[in-house]
Amino acid sequence: MATQALNVLISAKALAYVREAARARYGLDQIHFIPYNGRQLDEQTLAQVDIAFVSRDITGRSTKYVLDPATDSFYRMMEQAPNLQWVHVHSAGVDRPVYVRLRDKGLKVTSATGALSGIVAQSVLAAVLALNRRFRFLEQAQREHVWAPLLDELMPADLQGQHVVLAGWGPIGQTIQRYLDMLGMRVTVLRNSAVTTPTDISMVSYDALHRILPEADWLILACPLTETTRRLVDRKALDAMKAGACIVNVSRGEVIDEAALIEALGSGHIGGAYLDVVEKEPLASDSPLWDMPNVIVSPHTAGHSTGNEARVADIFLET
Amino acid sequence: MATQALNVLISAKALAYVREAARARYGLDQIHFIPYNGRQLDEQTLAQVDIAFVSRDITGRSTKYVLDPATDSFYRMMEQAPNLQWVHVHSAGVDRPVYVRLRDKGLKVTSATGALSGIVAQSVLAAVLALNRRFRFLEQAQREHVWAPLLDELMPADLQGQHVVLAGWGPIGQTIQRYLDMLGMRVTVLRNSAVTTPTDISMVSYDALHRILPEADWLILACPLTETTRRLVDRKALDAMKAGACIVNVSRGEVIDEAALIEALGSGHIGGAYLDVVEKEPLASDSPLWDMPNVIVSPHTAGHSTGNEARVADIFLET
Repeated sequence: MATQALNVLISAKALAYVREAARARYGLDQIHFIPYNGRQLDEQTLAQVDIAFVSRDITGRSTKYVLDPATDSFYRMMEQAPNLQWVHVHSAGVDRPVYVRLRDKGLKVTSATGALSGIVAQSVLAAVLALNRRFRFLEQAQREHVWAPLLDELMPADLQGQHVVLAGWGPIGQTIQRYLDMLGMRVTVLRNSAVTTPTDISMVSYDALHRILPEADWLILACPLTETTRRLVDRKALDAMKAGACIVNVSRGEVIDEAALIEALGSGHIGGAYLDVVEKEPLASDSPLWDMPNVIVSPHTAGHSTGNEARVADIFLET
Repeated sequence: MATQALNVLISAKALAYVREAARARYGLDQIHFIPYNGRQLDEQTLAQVDIAFVSRDITGRSTKYVLDPATDSFYRMMEQAPNLQWVHVHSAGVDRPVYVRLRDKGLKVTSATGALSGIVAQSVLAAVLALNRRFRFLEQAQREHVWAPLLDELMPADLQGQHVVLAGWGPIGQTIQRYLDMLGMRVTVLRNSAVTTPTDISMVSYDALHRILPEADWLILACPLTETTRRLVDRKALDAMKAGACIVNVSRGEVIDEAALIEALGSGHIGGAYLDVVEKEPLASDSPLWDMPNVIVSPHTAGHSTGNEARVADIFLET
């Protein structure tokens, strides 16, 4: 069927891996690409753009709060393109302000959550194992050339049988559950609505958080940032947790009251944390989180992996 | 049936967790315990010992080459006890010289490999993930308070689809295979004899090592130390590996030619290594391994976990 070709604004770097897949699927007469090389496009070219493909090379050096020039330029073009209808983003979360504004204008904004689910879940698995097996202590001993096996109070507790409260049941949360189940951990999922589909996985609503937290050895956050999840983990929630329990956050920094978390980590009430996200990214260089021996600071990098590009392109082309 | 009770030499610390299980299973008239408190027992008492139970609290501060006084004293008692018939060891490997001598005298020496399999396999999983996700680089950035996402040449490669050559198919190797399979990695197992039982897991004999190494992204060693595996990973094997491939060793240090490995790590031909064991433990404080940025030195602690005591006691009582 002869439809007019769609014009896709895309970085030259991303075009290199999308073009081949697009040609195979649609033929290049259906999709035209408008490559972006770091130079702002003129008004006439911008008027042709129907779709914007936002790849990691565009956003990877920026955070929600601090944009590098290439990111800023791409975002401004998206806001200026008068006929733009659809924005496809490589990441799982699409809560940066530009996407909120584009959605408010009525544009379709889609994400690639499925492409990242295995990678982010592996980062969570790495986080749980690294905290459990005291990798930061072992790293310190290695730097000091000290052979220090994990004995007595340093001996890790069996993960098998430990209880995890997991917020989020998208593709990422589901993969995390599968991985932790394999280690013999018990997972209770927090989600919005009561589940009607039969499942042997324990699920409770977000309202029940404070009731189940006292039983949890781990609180793992893999939920989107919404009005329900913003500041979900506040001082009261932290107080409700078992002494020594650990937190893993691959969601958004705003899900946790960071000041309260820092206090709870400092007192030892919270035993450890892996934070791939923080309230304000990049983390301020004077944040106490950097130097806490029971904290792993990961610079919003839990989803980075070379295979994502191909998976994101697939999702884009199938959407 | 009224048999004579067996006398078990055991540390006072281990007795605390074994006694209850023994009472439940056999009644305490079947098993008598001779607790060891750090003081050498007299000749008469030693003559009563039928069984020695070697727990981690006896061996944990010693290595194969350097014995602390408590370990040394316990080992000497085992060698002096004239009626000792059976030695049960908490660890998976029983290659310390004392066990070799006891076996040579005709004694039964058993290990608790099954008790540790989940824990050691989790350490291997942690090792693969920590190397893949560049935890040592991220640790360095955290120490410097630098927010440095994994981009460009630092971006991790997808583990899914990567090829692992795994030496060892005991309970530990089998659990490792199951874990890595869940991540989508392809595992080829190295083992002694051709397998006749049907299995969908690829297996080759040790003879085939050099043939399959060029295809491996990972070489994971979880085999016992035997005449086949001693120096299995020599200079020629390292040369045969793909540039940038990684090694994980939870077996014994003697399985690798350590000098050749240090060279291969230094040149970057081997991309990274997690070494829970080394040729001579504790690792000499001037070993170059400590300071290599692509090496994680773990002080023979991959199997340490609080639940092992109960599992080792179970295996002991069932054996």
